[in-house]
Amino acid sequence: MLRPVDIIVKKRNKDMLTAEEIAAFVSGYCNGTIPEYQMASWLMAVYFNGMTPQETADLTNAMIHSGRVLDLSDLGKPLVDKHSTGGVGDKTSMILAPVMAALGFADPMMSGRGLGHTGGTLDKLESVSGYNVHLSEQQVRDTISGCGFAMFAQSDDMVVADKKMYALRDVTGTVESIPLMTASILSKKLAEGTKYLVMDVKFGSGAFMKNKPDAQRLAESLVRTGEPLGLSVKTLITDMSAPLGECVGNLLEMQEVARIMRDGLGKNRMSQSLEEVTVDLAALMVQSVLPDKSDEDAHAMVRDVINNGSAYKKFIRNIELQGGNPDDLWRPIKCCEVYELKAPCSGIIEQIDAYKIGLSSMCLGAGRRTVDDIIDHECGIILRHRIGDTVAQGDTIAELHYNRLDNIEEAIKLASDAVKIISNS
Amino acid sequence: MLRPVDIIVKKRNKDMLTAEEIAAFVSGYCNGTIPEYQMASWLMAVYFNGMTPQETADLTNAMIHSGRVLDLSDLGKPLVDKHSTGGVGDKTSMILAPVMAALGFADPMMSGRGLGHTGGTLDKLESVSGYNVHLSEQQVRDTISGCGFAMFAQSDDMVVADKKMYALRDVTGTVESIPLMTASILSKKLAEGTKYLVMDVKFGSGAFMKNKPDAQRLAESLVRTGEPLGLSVKTLITDMSAPLGECVGNLLEMQEVARIMRDGLGKNRMSQSLEEVTVDLAALMVQSVLPDKSDEDAHAMVRDVINNGSAYKKFIRNIELQGGNPDDLWRPIKCCEVYELKAPCSGIIEQIDAYKIGLSSMCLGAGRRTVDDIIDHECGIILRHRIGDTVAQGDTIAELHYNRLDNIEEAIKLASDAVKIISNS
Repeated sequence: MLRPVDIIVKKRNKDMLTAEEIAAFVSGYCNGTIPEYQMASWLMAVYFNGMTPQETADLTNAMIHSGRVLDLSDLGKPLVDKHSTGGVGDKTSMILAPVMAALGFADPMMSGRGLGHTGGTLDKLESVSGYNVHLSEQQVRDTISGCGFAMFAQSDDMVVADKKMYALRDVTGTVESIPLMTASILSKKLAEGTKYLVMDVKFGSGAFMKNKPDAQRLAESLVRTGEPLGLSVKTLITDMSAPLGECVGNLLEMQEVARIMRDGLGKNRMSQSLEEVTVDLAALMVQSVLPDKSDEDAHAMVRDVINNGSAYKKFIRNIELQGGNPDDLWRPIKCCEVYELKAPCSGIIEQIDAYKIGLSSMCLGAGRRTVDDIIDHECGIILRHRIGDTVAQGDTIAELHYNRLDNIEEAIKLASDAVKIISNS
Repeated sequence: MLRPVDIIVKKRNKDMLTAEEIAAFVSGYCNGTIPEYQMASWLMAVYFNGMTPQETADLTNAMIHSGRVLDLSDLGKPLVDKHSTGGVGDKTSMILAPVMAALGFADPMMSGRGLGHTGGTLDKLESVSGYNVHLSEQQVRDTISGCGFAMFAQSDDMVVADKKMYALRDVTGTVESIPLMTASILSKKLAEGTKYLVMDVKFGSGAFMKNKPDAQRLAESLVRTGEPLGLSVKTLITDMSAPLGECVGNLLEMQEVARIMRDGLGKNRMSQSLEEVTVDLAALMVQSVLPDKSDEDAHAMVRDVINNGSAYKKFIRNIELQGGNPDDLWRPIKCCEVYELKAPCSGIIEQIDAYKIGLSSMCLGAGRRTVDDIIDHECGIILRHRIGDTVAQGDTIAELHYNRLDNIEEAIKLASDAVKIISNS
């Protein structure tokens, strides 16, 4: 067997690594016989030289088996899930999982937390008081049996390699690598037991990928790598240059989701962008499991379970099963301060920059600047207008709700910089 | 100031780093605030993206000032030194330093130890019983004042960054990088106080650089980087496909050097390749300090001080000043075993591979497989023929002298594989 340094040199020289070499490198890293610095230099070599589809699949496999793996096939339902590369105001997961459940599928949705300008599904769920995302394997099974889906945090004994490697990539300049991103995403989804995955690969200012070609490359890599691993991957490339929907924040986003599912689609023009992306993703999930369904049929099935309230029932049932209090979805948010962002001139709104809105929301307390920051679940931003709207000078474009005053100036500056109006004077 | 990860990303993205950024990164690494894994990924990024001449000079500067620096300008003599990228049977340093001293220059020769197939100057010197390479700054000054040169090991408080970075490069696949090699070499030479450096950049099987274009690239980088740092660098690109001179081993090499300097040049045909390279390097050192000297004059000056015995006097005086016993230069080596490598057929010797002879000598005990191995100073290889010689079947081509039996089969196999004879049958 090659020494660790020889595996690094092989990748550096663009020679193809074998499955055994990759597995040995990953497991050596996890058990501490390969030090952080060797993994760091290997990751940088991968950044530059990439990986073949086979190498990427082998890396994914090695990462899956660095920890406990869920096998939920005995639940007897198609195991379908969605994953997104992260965005601003993106609360599609909270609608998609109940929709899948309402359609008779099972969704074992293992999610993460937010950092920087992006929010995290776990943080949003925890804004509902009592909601428990730390489920044992038995609790995941019981919850899925009870309501068709479970939403939970990755436990410490799952995908151990990914946790260690991701933390290392974050501080060694090796995050932006398609094969490393692919392996990180797919290892988690395969470890949670999913068989059908729909990937929402976002591009634009609020997304991880700033441009569409990069998003397309990641999408292709995900599809190609999933195949030999027995995972069906379908991808949707979506625009994240503006926030998705009406609200950005944790409880605010849960409440927007609850309103859509209780009242049905098309009731709030501010939620339209969110609803469209969500229905498209859900339809793709349907087609993963039922490839014979036409686009039209799949869309209709999704709209039906939202509009007839059956998805909403699953949603509320899930909150109850995971210990949350659904009353939080309908009460006013607890924020002592509100800042109304006014249009500085009359005109047409040309841009509401997702990245800046995400950072503004983080400054209000809804997100984390560093992993140790504590979130204020109540605060966030409510948009009152969307791109294309005609506004008069002084109209409220957005409301910033907050309790903490420390970064409020930065939050206001970011929010006002985010909005561009083409003056009609 | 940028965070360490931003400095990594900047290099990864091929943006030019400032002197301040490089200095902060190197000093952070030395004081432990920047961990090994960040340096490792930065080194790999440098491997791929290289460094501009300015960046390389800035890195060299940061490395010099990571430790104590010798300033020997008060000695009032031109401070001239040679450095080589390492070879097999390369004992030029032990002749060059006394020659420089005999010409009235000062040579503060800080050297290293051998590893793998290459020998190290310090190991060769220590084969003379009592010879002390661990000199204080005062001892370096006193020795140079006494005999014109000093030969010493880098102390722990000098070029601290280079020691740490070299050890890390060795295990992270980042040794073969021209700017990193350049900074490593020049930082050591500048820290020892040299003003005129001649670099022997070797290529061929026994050299670090296996081909001439790579050697040329390193040579150009050394010249270009030395200039802004106030160091005159001249380079000679030399062939290291066959061992240099008659002997490979530690005391054996010291004895070959002693014979050349006591008896004068041209007395032993087996030492001819060594003598030629040595005189060329010495002449270049003369021309560094005295740029008006013609090639012919510089060569004549060098030959004179060897042939008239004045270099030999400096050589013996240095051994005495550094505590060594010159009698060791003239006694038989203490080896209980000898293996005579015979020509397997009659013909002309086409090749004596330096790399394999170096490894064979290492197996005999003259070198180190790993840094912790202990050297047997007495053993080694004496060549009895050179490339181009006509030999009869059964003629002795080389003698392998040794005490340890553990790796003798491997040593014999390597030595016989090293020799290629074109059969004249």
